[in-house]
Amino acid sequence: MKIKVVVTLKNGVLDPQGKAIQQTLNGMGFPLVNEVRQGKYFEVDLSEKDEAKAKNKVEDMCKKLLANLVIENFEIL
Amino acid sequence: MKIKVVVTLKNGVLDPQGKAIQQTLNGMGFPLVNEVRQGKYFEVDLSEKDEAKAKNKVEDMCKKLLANLVIENFEIL
Repeated sequence: MKIKVVVTLKNGVLDPQGKAIQQTLNGMGFPLVNEVRQGKYFEVDLSEKDEAKAKNKVEDMCKKLLANLVIENFEIL
Repeated sequence: MKIKVVVTLKNGVLDPQGKAIQQTLNGMGFPLVNEVRQGKYFEVDLSEKDEAKAKNKVEDMCKKLLANLVIENFEIL
């Protein structure tokens, strides 16, 4: 089954890429945009039919590889 | 208000980054992983209180800047 994960920067961690996108949007006719923060998104396809077990595995993957827990949070959707 | 967007590669578009993650996970003790596809995630903070209007604006931003519609799909969460 497919499990979806979002990895985002923690609050307070600078996001220069998001800042660049925000400034570009402001200059493109979207002055209402106050802030953009960019994160990563993963779709992990596993040979595991039990949803709870699959999510557990993916949580483990996030902790070991997909997210840097010093500066990032992850959320399994 | 904050609007969340996910941008993913279309089916059939090669994702070498996802492939590398999949192979690394397989080698790290997760042999159950068949495929990983990586996408982008954006949180856009707008000075707009009406949710429908905010989502409309973000859809426009996706079409103009955030997603490359030739190879990517976007989904507003």
